[in-house]
Amino acid sequence: MTEKTETVPGWLAPEELESIRGRMPILYIDAVPVRVDETGVVTHVGLLLRISSDGEVSRALVSGRVRHHERVRDALMRHLEKDLGPVALPNIPISPQPFTVAEYFPTPGVTPYHDPRQHAVSLAYIVPVSGDCRPRQDALDLVWFTPEEASSPMVQQEMAGGQGVLLKQALAHVGRLT
Amino acid sequence: MTEKTETVPGWLAPEELESIRGRMPILYIDAVPVRVDETGVVTHVGLLLRISSDGEVSRALVSGRVRHHERVRDALMRHLEKDLGPVALPNIPISPQPFTVAEYFPTPGVTPYHDPRQHAVSLAYIVPVSGDCRPRQDALDLVWFTPEEASSPMVQQEMAGGQGVLLKQALAHVGRLT
Amino acid sequence: MTEKTETVPGWLAPEELESIRGRMPILYIDAVPVRVDETGVVTHVGLLLRISSDGEVSRALVSGRVRHHERVRDALMRHLEKDLGPVALPNIPISPQPFTVAEYFPTPGVTPYHDPRQHAVSLAYIVPVSGDCRPRQDALDLVWFTPEEASSPMVQQEMAGGQGVLLKQALAHVGRLT
Amino acid sequence: MTEKTETVPGWLAPEELESIRGRMPILYIDAVPVRVDETGVVTHVGLLLRISSDGEVSRALVSGRVRHHERVRDALMRHLEKDLGPVALPNIPISPQPFTVAEYFPTPGVTPYHDPRQHAVSLAYIVPVSGDCRPRQDALDLVWFTPEEASSPMVQQEMAGGQGVLLKQALAHVGRLT
Repeated sequence: MTEKTETVPGWLAPEELESIRGRMPILYIDAVPVRVDETGVVTHVGLLLRISSDGEVSRALVSGRVRHHERVRDALMRHLEKDLGPVALPNIPISPQPFTVAEYFPTPGVTPYHDPRQHAVSLAYIVPVSGDCRPRQDALDLVWFTPEEASSPMVQQEMAGGQGVLLKQALAHVGRLT
Repeated sequence: MTEKTETVPGWLAPEELESIRGRMPILYIDAVPVRVDETGVVTHVGLLLRISSDGEVSRALVSGRVRHHERVRDALMRHLEKDLGPVALPNIPISPQPFTVAEYFPTPGVTPYHDPRQHAVSLAYIVPVSGDCRPRQDALDLVWFTPEEASSPMVQQEMAGGQGVLLKQALAHVGRLT
Repeated sequence: MTEKTETVPGWLAPEELESIRGRMPILYIDAVPVRVDETGVVTHVGLLLRISSDGEVSRALVSGRVRHHERVRDALMRHLEKDLGPVALPNIPISPQPFTVAEYFPTPGVTPYHDPRQHAVSLAYIVPVSGDCRPRQDALDLVWFTPEEASSPMVQQEMAGGQGVLLKQALAHVGRLT
Repeated sequence: MTEKTETVPGWLAPEELESIRGRMPILYIDAVPVRVDETGVVTHVGLLLRISSDGEVSRALVSGRVRHHERVRDALMRHLEKDLGPVALPNIPISPQPFTVAEYFPTPGVTPYHDPRQHAVSLAYIVPVSGDCRPRQDALDLVWFTPEEASSPMVQQEMAGGQGVLLKQALAHVGRLT
C-alpha cells in the first residue's frame, strides 16, 4: 500500500481516506453537464441515473474528490471522463471561479447540502459537453432534461444530498431557472 | 429612413445615434477572444490590429453596440462574426453574467475607460474561439498573444480607451495575469 | 426644458426619453435589498409594496435607469436612496460585476423578463442594507421576507415583469434558494 | 490528544495534520481586507506585515485553513478576527462564490501559487472592513495601501507564494487594477 501511495500521487488507500474523513473538510468538484445552442443558451442538463439494489431511482451530478497534486481543472476532466466516457468533449471552464461552493456537512441542516460520510466542500462548475456521452462505472445512463424538467419537483425529489438545490443554482446562474 | 428603422429592428440612422449620444449611456459589449487548451487554460488572447492613416498601430478587443430588441448574446455573436469572420466558431458564454462592466466615459479619469464620443457601458465577456479567424472590415489582422505578451507594456500601450486595463482584468479572471 | 437638459447632465425630458425608447436598449440597474447576519448569510429580502388604483397589490425590486455620465454605482446609490430613504445605509457592491443581467424585452417570451414600454437591459446587484428603510415616492412600504417566503408562489405571483425570477436568481447566488 | 480531537471538532493534532499533508489537498481561505468609500469603490488594501528573524520584511493576506465541520464563512470570520483583532468589523461576503480559487502547489510552476509545505486549495474573498484593525499573533502590523501601491513592484516583491498575483486578481475583480 505504501508503495502505491508513493507511485500514484494523490492516491489514497481506502483506510487512509477513512481516517482522514471526520478530521478535515475534503475537497470535491461538482460538474453540471449541459447542452447549449449556438448562442450559448443552455437547452438541456445531463443527470446520471442510478438504480439502487432495492430498485430506487436516483439522479446525480458528476461529482468527485480532488486528489493531492491535481489541479481542479484536471479533477473536472477526470471525473467527467469517468462518468460520461472518453468522447463527451467537455468544455472545461476557462476561469477557476466556481459558480458556487457547496458545503456538504455530515450533520443535516447546517447548509442545504448533506453527506453522511464526511464534510465535503465542493467547487461547482457548469460544463458544456458537445460530444457523445456514454456513462460508465456505476451509472446506468445519462439523461438529458430541459431546464424546466430539471427544476421540476419530480426530478428534484430524485436527487440526494442537496444536489437538486445545486442544480437549481446552476440553472439560475445561466438564466434558465423560471 | 423611417421605413428602414421599422423593418430592421435596432437599426438607427447615423443622425439618430448622434442625437442620442450625449443624452444616454449606450449599451455595448466587449469580447476578449481566447484560445484554450483541452483543460480550459487560456493559452492565447486575440487582438485586432488596426493601422491608422498616419501609420499608427493600434490593437483592440472585439467591441460594439447592442441593438434595440437584440439579446446580449446575439450582439456578441454578431460582433464576433463581423470582426473574426464566419468560421471563428466562438463559444458564447452560457451565463449572462459578464466578468466585468467597463464604463467608458467621455470625460477621462472618471473610470479607467474613456470614449471621447460617448458614455458607453460595456458588458465584457471572454470568448473561446476554436475555428479559423479571418478579420474583416477595418481590421488588418487578428494577432494571437500569450497572456504574458498581452499584459506586457508593449502591447498595453498599443491599446486605447482603457482596453489594455480591460484585457488585464480578463487575464486576471482566468488566472493568467502574473 | 432644453435648459434643464443642459444644466442637469443625464436628465432627459420625458418626450426625449419617449423618442429614444423603441430605438435603443435602455440601461437599468436592479437592486435586491437584503438583511444579513454577522457571518454574511442573507436572512431577509426587502420588497417594495405598491397598490394600484384598482387595489391590486404588487411587489417590486429597487429599479431604475442609469443616467448619462453617471457611474453604475452612483445610479445604485441614487435609486436605493430614492426608494429606501436617506438612512438605509446600503453597502454598494465593491465589484462592478452584476450577479446577472436581466434583459427586459417589450415582446414577452424572448427572455424571462418583460417591459411593455421598452427594451431595458438591467445590471442586477444584491445590496445589504443595515440602516432604517423608509420607502418614499410611490411605494407604500418595504416588507422584509425570509428567503423561503420570497421564493414562495404567493410572493412570486405578486411580482411583475419577471422580477420574481430575478429575485430567485439572487437567492440562488447567495446560496439561499432551496 | 485523542480527547481533544473529539471535544474540539475540526481540531487536528499537529502530527495528524503533518501526516495528512502530502496526501490530500488542504482547504484554505484567503481574505483580502479592503477599505471602501460610500459608493463601494475600494480605496485601500490591507496587508499584514511580518519581519523574519533575519530581518526580512514580508507582506501577506489573511489566510488559513478551514476546519472540519466549519462553514467557509465561519473560517473567514475566525481568521479575520485572529489576524485583524476583534473590532475590525468585517463584511463577510453574502455569496459563497469566491472571486477566484488559488491552488498552492508544493511544486513551483504548476500554478502561480506555491506552498512548499503542502497542496493547499484556497477560496479567495475580498472583505471590506470598517472597524479598527489591531493585528495580533505573529503579524507586526497591518498596513493600508492604495490600489496603485498594492500592485507596484515594491509591494509585489514583498509578497510570497504567489499572493502578489492573488492581490492583483482581487484588484482586477473590483476594477482597481490599472
